[in-house]
Amino acid sequence: MSLADSTAAEQPVRGRPRSEAVERAIIEGVMKLLEEGVSLAEISIERIARTAGVGKAAIYRRWSGKEELFVDVLRTTEPEDLELPGTSMRDDLIVLLESLRRRGLVNRSSAILHNVQAQMKSSPKIWAAYNNTVIAPRRRVGIEVLRRGQRNGELRLDVDVDLVNDLFVGPMLVRAVLRPDADLPEDLPERIVDTLLAGLRPVSSPVP
Amino acid sequence: MSLADSTAAEQPVRGRPRSEAVERAIIEGVMKLLEEGVSLAEISIERIARTAGVGKAAIYRRWSGKEELFVDVLRTTEPEDLELPGTSMRDDLIVLLESLRRRGLVNRSSAILHNVQAQMKSSPKIWAAYNNTVIAPRRRVGIEVLRRGQRNGELRLDVDVDLVNDLFVGPMLVRAVLRPDADLPEDLPERIVDTLLAGLRPVSSPVP
Repeated sequence: MSLADSTAAEQPVRGRPRSEAVERAIIEGVMKLLEEGVSLAEISIERIARTAGVGKAAIYRRWSGKEELFVDVLRTTEPEDLELPGTSMRDDLIVLLESLRRRGLVNRSSAILHNVQAQMKSSPKIWAAYNNTVIAPRRRVGIEVLRRGQRNGELRLDVDVDLVNDLFVGPMLVRAVLRPDADLPEDLPERIVDTLLAGLRPVSSPVP
Repeated sequence: MSLADSTAAEQPVRGRPRSEAVERAIIEGVMKLLEEGVSLAEISIERIARTAGVGKAAIYRRWSGKEELFVDVLRTTEPEDLELPGTSMRDDLIVLLESLRRRGLVNRSSAILHNVQAQMKSSPKIWAAYNNTVIAPRRRVGIEVLRRGQRNGELRLDVDVDLVNDLFVGPMLVRAVLRPDADLPEDLPERIVDTLLAGLRPVSSPVP
């Protein structure tokens, strides 16, 4: 769907929807520039305004600057908020890893996304904003799932949940983000979770 | 040590050492440009030649192009080849993870290195070259250590060593590369390895 069409088609009466359309126009304007291969460094507020067909003030009313806007652009490409089944720590962890796997697949299929994420890392300000709004909250969900697991007797009590979160998330991120040629098969989340729970020593636990 | 000094001081008679000095001058030339904040995209063979005080032909005689040269520059910043103790799979894995931890610490302390690695990811050609010459060989060492562990009875036989390698390496890389604010304490390699071997289920194996 072209954004220009949608703004022309709907001419809402009150502020809210109108404002959402403007916001969408701005975000899609940035996406359009990125798709054209313009680098983050070259994208100015002025250029975004021109591409989106809005005034610069409309942008500054919503975002303090480029960095904040870029993070919102990236956030629109993230999967929807997670629905955790809550049936067990194991099930919740599998859902969490599955969402990372899907995100990895989306990133791979989108050269733009991949490129933007790489560029973002060279800008400490954008990276910090992305970390605070996207990564940190996801991390907090993982830690909460693990704490619940400890309360339920699904996870050892003598482990540092912060480290354990990295044990689960790390292998998935390595494949999804750092090794673009690595397999991301459907059963990967389950295999990671179950292998970590069981441990790698041959003298495994006596329970089945 | 200034490179200019060293080339002036030693005027070797035969080809080999002379050639090494030129090679070093070229690599240090690239480092100098990077330190000055010049981006990979802006660094041309011509500019490198000028900075290093050599002819363009001297560069093309050694590298097929910019990408190959950049990878060699990055390789000089990598830690030395690893000496694995070979006493056990556990000990070897700890040494492997320790080298990743050190590399993470070096990257953090060097804004240039960090920046170059980020830029590199936006260039599929350079990334592929880096992957082939630096990452893939390291990966092969890890897989070999795990296979030996399976033969020695230190690692379960019913696991995919490729996945298990990611289970060990993933948490360290997530902290060292993806989460620049994460702790990298000295005992991290040991904690990762021992936690993975023991497993995370509370009903742990009967051995102490």
